Amino acid sequence: MERRGFLKNAAVTALLGSSVAACEKAEQSTSAVSTPASKAEPTMQQKTIEWKMVTTWPKNFPGLGTGANHLAALIGEMSGGRLKVKVYGAKELVPAFEIFDAVSQGTAEMGHGAAYYWKGKSEAAQFFTTVPFGLTAQEMNSWLYHGGGMDLWKEVYEPFGLVPTASGNTGVQMGGWFNKEINSVTDLEGLKMRIPGLGGEVLKRAGGIPVSLPGGEIFTSLQSGAIDATEWIGPYNDLAFGLHKAARYYYYPGWHEPGTTLECFVSKKAFDALPADLQSIVINASRVANQDMLAEYTARNNQALKTLIEEHGVDLRRFSNEILAKLKVLSDEVVAETAAKDQLSRRIYESFVSFRDQAKAWHDISERAYMNARG
Amino acid sequence: MERRGFLKNAAVTALLGSSVAACEKAEQSTSAVSTPASKAEPTMQQKTIEWKMVTTWPKNFPGLGTGANHLAALIGEMSGGRLKVKVYGAKELVPAFEIFDAVSQGTAEMGHGAAYYWKGKSEAAQFFTTVPFGLTAQEMNSWLYHGGGMDLWKEVYEPFGLVPTASGNTGVQMGGWFNKEINSVTDLEGLKMRIPGLGGEVLKRAGGIPVSLPGGEIFTSLQSGAIDATEWIGPYNDLAFGLHKAARYYYYPGWHEPGTTLECFVSKKAFDALPADLQSIVINASRVANQDMLAEYTARNNQALKTLIEEHGVDLRRFSNEILAKLKVLSDEVVAETAAKDQLSRRIYESFVSFRDQAKAWHDISERAYMNARG
Repeated sequence: MERRGFLKNAAVTALLGSSVAACEKAEQSTSAVSTPASKAEPTMQQKTIEWKMVTTWPKNFPGLGTGANHLAALIGEMSGGRLKVKVYGAKELVPAFEIFDAVSQGTAEMGHGAAYYWKGKSEAAQFFTTVPFGLTAQEMNSWLYHGGGMDLWKEVYEPFGLVPTASGNTGVQMGGWFNKEINSVTDLEGLKMRIPGLGGEVLKRAGGIPVSLPGGEIFTSLQSGAIDATEWIGPYNDLAFGLHKAARYYYYPGWHEPGTTLECFVSKKAFDALPADLQSIVINASRVANQDMLAEYTARNNQALKTLIEEHGVDLRRFSNEILAKLKVLSDEVVAETAAKDQLSRRIYESFVSFRDQAKAWHDISERAYMNARG
Repeated sequence: MERRGFLKNAAVTALLGSSVAACEKAEQSTSAVSTPASKAEPTMQQKTIEWKMVTTWPKNFPGLGTGANHLAALIGEMSGGRLKVKVYGAKELVPAFEIFDAVSQGTAEMGHGAAYYWKGKSEAAQFFTTVPFGLTAQEMNSWLYHGGGMDLWKEVYEPFGLVPTASGNTGVQMGGWFNKEINSVTDLEGLKMRIPGLGGEVLKRAGGIPVSLPGGEIFTSLQSGAIDATEWIGPYNDLAFGLHKAARYYYYPGWHEPGTTLECFVSKKAFDALPADLQSIVINASRVANQDMLAEYTARNNQALKTLIEEHGVDLRRFSNEILAKLKVLSDEVVAETAAKDQLSRRIYESFVSFRDQAKAWHDISERAYMNARG
């Protein structure tokens, strides 16, 4: 998936309701009493702090936008209303792809998006969302929280005055929707597919023609034959988008996005001004939101997949071993080249690949072996 | 794994340091000012509340005991010290397997253990930890948070005055340590294996002899030949236990414990007396601890497995398809029989099996298919 163009589309703008909400002038007080966690009976007479969270999603977009809402609600609940976060959909306060700069510059205190949107700031940012043939959701969390990944992410965002957190995960996505059968690598040659980013670069090396399209134009482009294929997210979101009406073959697995991590980032200045308990609440609310989104997709994709197959007669197909093996080789090339662009990217690439190899060795005999044994 | 007997063993008692710590008389105040989350500027002049958390683990036991410590620390941090939780290792305040009754009766406010220890209270409790050929960690979280599982768990614990939360996960465990090769189902006949609970019942139906042994006796029993095999947890814990010195073959996957969920439970009376913000902090700190333990095991098992194989020459083996298929059939029988014991167990079984079938259908084409494609 990539939502850049998607958010520009008029059809989607309609989802936003009033497309630009009044920019509420929130009275913000971050001059709260400092409250060390170790103090037995802290004084809690703090003013209410009001924050703005800008997002790359249309307001209330299922899974992603509702995940941002959930994060804001958790912070409000756990802080007893002392820290109130108001969520803005894309375009309500700033355009979707200006949220990074907006929070960096102090227009809002928080942002909710995906790190691979900011590859213009740092090539390495992509590793903190997902890369082709990279980590699963469980592995991403392990790398971030117990494998050094989060420290590297902080290093990438530090020059921009931002503190990053992982704040959601879609799990393994689908390979995409195709109007023709893909039986061998040669079927990828000349294939016009809407697939952005590193996945698109991989397709290009396999002979395909990656196309960048606004999400809202996918359906008509696929139906008219302007493109032959598209990827999006997974059954829960794809069903709602109606993609089964424009293409017959639904391929798996999503080799290009195996554990897409959504992010929250916070203005370091605003974060540092919080008392220690509210800092902990912000960080840990993100972790709960991170876990909860994955749990939600895992539950909802089941039902949507069933509906797609049983009610809409979707033809579910698996990419052949030959195709997957070729895409793996090309992906490793593309990912390694990306990492070679600067010194920090190289360090992140090395940490990521080293962790992936180890996590894979363990999961080959645990998660993977178990799922295969379950039959 | 099962820790019942393990905790009785003298060798392990030594780990506890002073085996029974002074029962500190904590001044407890749950008469705090009620603070609705919706109130803009709540009054926060609350007394410090002190809670006791009793656990089934030796104090600071890697992964499990440290997970309980982490949960307590999170609550302290997020509450700014308003709710302080003191963790007691097994036997420090009450014996390991009396923590359920202790919290139910008000001796302590929180407990940290595993629901399958309380099958004497309800057969269905086992579903909230793990069952043979059941849910993976990701699927467990999805069932609990978005598939109705948590409501059922609350229903099971409600008569005991307890509020349950999921508070950790080991991921897929290992199949166990064996002193002989297991090449076919016939090799299981007459096999004396330390394997407790439902897994043990399955082994029995395959012709084996399940043995219940204190954890601390496993090593010597395996070395002396009193038993032929044992299961424990996974590389991180098994390496520390030294099991590679007593058996040569390390089999996978852990069909009997595919996503072992650890629990925290809270006295409903103490919970209800908390203001809304602290209630939210307790519940959400558990979710963070739940995610974090899985991330830790995922990271640490990699390294430990490497050490076991490369430094200790452990012979890593996979159970054959024939063996796994037979164990699957027997597991389904055993799990279904357990569920038939009472009305609530039946409802939980039906919810669990229905969710498993759907989650499996989705994961067959996402997590499983991706891990297989990664090569």
